[in-house]
Amino acid sequence: MLSDLEVSNLITKTIQDVIGKSPVILHEPKFVGNEWVYLKECLDTGFVSSVGKFVDRFEFELASYTKSKYAIAVVNGTSALHIALILSGVKPGDEVLIPSLSFVATANAVTYCGAIPHFVESESVHLGLDALKIRDYLKSISEKKSGQLVNRNTGRVIRAIVPMHTFGHPVQLDELLKLAKDFSLILVEDAAESLGSYYDGKHTGTFGLFGTLSFNGNKTITTGGGGAILTQDESLAKHAKHITTTAKLAHRWDYVHDEIGYNYRMPNINAALGCAQLENLPMFLESKRKLFSKYKAAFSSLEFVSILEEPKNCSSNYWLQTLCLSDSVESARDSILENTNANGVMTRPCWRLLHSLAPFQNSPKMDLAVAESLEKKLINIPSSSFLINPSNL
Amino acid sequence: MLSDLEVSNLITKTIQDVIGKSPVILHEPKFVGNEWVYLKECLDTGFVSSVGKFVDRFEFELASYTKSKYAIAVVNGTSALHIALILSGVKPGDEVLIPSLSFVATANAVTYCGAIPHFVESESVHLGLDALKIRDYLKSISEKKSGQLVNRNTGRVIRAIVPMHTFGHPVQLDELLKLAKDFSLILVEDAAESLGSYYDGKHTGTFGLFGTLSFNGNKTITTGGGGAILTQDESLAKHAKHITTTAKLAHRWDYVHDEIGYNYRMPNINAALGCAQLENLPMFLESKRKLFSKYKAAFSSLEFVSILEEPKNCSSNYWLQTLCLSDSVESARDSILENTNANGVMTRPCWRLLHSLAPFQNSPKMDLAVAESLEKKLINIPSSSFLINPSNL
Repeated sequence: MLSDLEVSNLITKTIQDVIGKSPVILHEPKFVGNEWVYLKECLDTGFVSSVGKFVDRFEFELASYTKSKYAIAVVNGTSALHIALILSGVKPGDEVLIPSLSFVATANAVTYCGAIPHFVESESVHLGLDALKIRDYLKSISEKKSGQLVNRNTGRVIRAIVPMHTFGHPVQLDELLKLAKDFSLILVEDAAESLGSYYDGKHTGTFGLFGTLSFNGNKTITTGGGGAILTQDESLAKHAKHITTTAKLAHRWDYVHDEIGYNYRMPNINAALGCAQLENLPMFLESKRKLFSKYKAAFSSLEFVSILEEPKNCSSNYWLQTLCLSDSVESARDSILENTNANGVMTRPCWRLLHSLAPFQNSPKMDLAVAESLEKKLINIPSSSFLINPSNL
Repeated sequence: MLSDLEVSNLITKTIQDVIGKSPVILHEPKFVGNEWVYLKECLDTGFVSSVGKFVDRFEFELASYTKSKYAIAVVNGTSALHIALILSGVKPGDEVLIPSLSFVATANAVTYCGAIPHFVESESVHLGLDALKIRDYLKSISEKKSGQLVNRNTGRVIRAIVPMHTFGHPVQLDELLKLAKDFSLILVEDAAESLGSYYDGKHTGTFGLFGTLSFNGNKTITTGGGGAILTQDESLAKHAKHITTTAKLAHRWDYVHDEIGYNYRMPNINAALGCAQLENLPMFLESKRKLFSKYKAAFSSLEFVSILEEPKNCSSNYWLQTLCLSDSVESARDSILENTNANGVMTRPCWRLLHSLAPFQNSPKMDLAVAESLEKKLINIPSSSFLINPSNL
């Protein structure tokens, strides 16, 4: 049996065999297209903020790319989810089902609505919500009252379910859509990590009432900071645009706001960056897929670790490449993190499970044995699109 | 007596005598400094988002410029005010005193805390809160209980007061600070419009527990979208930085968030723009002051209208130049708006008073006769820094 140090050294070496020995961070953007041209256009025309053509263009091109009927650009993925939940009818005192295995933004957006995150279980193939286990759980703890799902333990309405496509791998949406329908739950997809990922040939984020995207600097494409709301419903799209732009009624000079609004519009300069990045997304995705293949081949010789592969019927963007340690070496996780980072190979574990964080410790939750097991086994490794084929970029 | 049309024609002509006859909007930014150099540096280094030196540099330079001990850059002025209110201890169910004569963001930020805006009166010299009238009002409707100010009519705690420096003109802070002290109110300055404005030689936004700035595209300087929180208290500054960056504890790889956080950090690319803009702020201010002088001279011949001047002991940034109609011609306001805008001179009235907007109609308010009178008289006219001396810029 290998020692923790031997395991760690083997993993560091295997990664470096693929990407070389130069220090690398987990995920970096690359600006090799029209970024300069479009930014310069913003400066030359003076349109950097709420006026300018790039926001409309970015929204149009996002909608085209994802084949979503509507896309609304906002300041970040968290704000996109906040608005999607508000427009899904999430009210103060409601509960919203979300994965404990997610970035904290998923839970924070629920709290911004005055609602309570209710943590549900993930499964180990795609790392997303486990629809079958959640179905059994809801049968045992909830009941329908006047068409709404009520948590018998808390008396609160369970309003929505928010699956997240972890590290870009699509969750099994068919089962979740059935679950949402059977239990009268609104389904909102947190697709912050999955731009370029498809479930059954259809882009993630276009299955639920809303889907939300992120273009933070560590994502597959970036706008500096940014996000988007996807929806197939015209009136919801109009409403989303309205309340993300201070809910101001159109008028040449008058300032009438007809509901509580938000200052969530993406500035034109950030959208300009997004337009340029989106043009290169197919190339980024191809490179990330190649990187996955190289990692897969390299790690095939190590029997104690596997690399996460796109689920069946899915095409993943491979946003973050993810190692899964076998039970026998999970005790080496921190040693691997130390060893790789000390050698200039940036790695990280998955996020701390959200139900264990101080602000959410009193939130309702189901048995989370799988999520807890995954937390000990998952390690993200360098995943930038240009790592193996810089000449392409 | 002049007809509405004659009044309108005279006003349009007087504005055009100053700025010429080319169509102009109300306020435009100008990029004549290092904007392109700094944006290019972001692209060349790959640092456009949450990593990069421009955010730290912008915060440092903002603090230096305003002589605030601390400045925290965020995505916009609304988010800055939201965080300032949270960290001032504003809780769900509290009331917060704000001007009815303000942009809707002031009231929205209060509602994001679950608190209720309580509208108070403005006065006609600086257009900001009228401390003396508010003092009398509070005496009549509130009482101290356990060190907190309680509204006797609603039973709610009145936690804070948020003066706003309207169109860049500083409110009379001395009286307001005394009021806040006497009534146990936290004072937060909404300085969204007043970067470059001073009260008694000290920069606006540095008097209250917090001050908040905006760098929206229509402001004196712009970051595309952006804002900042000013404070003189080290632990509040650290806390503001912490919760605007998802409340994540520093660690090489672990993701622990110790409270509800927000994704409000200003992206590096927007901060880069801000650094360049800030370098030219003194020039912008000088140009805006010259524009004011020209307008003042031009309008001195019209006895039915005056142009708003900086209050005594204050230096105003003259963000938006503001006409004030005399009683005799206030019926011509809409005609003036029609006439100017039809002739390519963009003008607008002040905002609809917030207490009259649908979302705030049930909010508590004092007598707002002066604000209501001002609403009928105020017209903002073109105010960009480059209007009269383009060769300087």
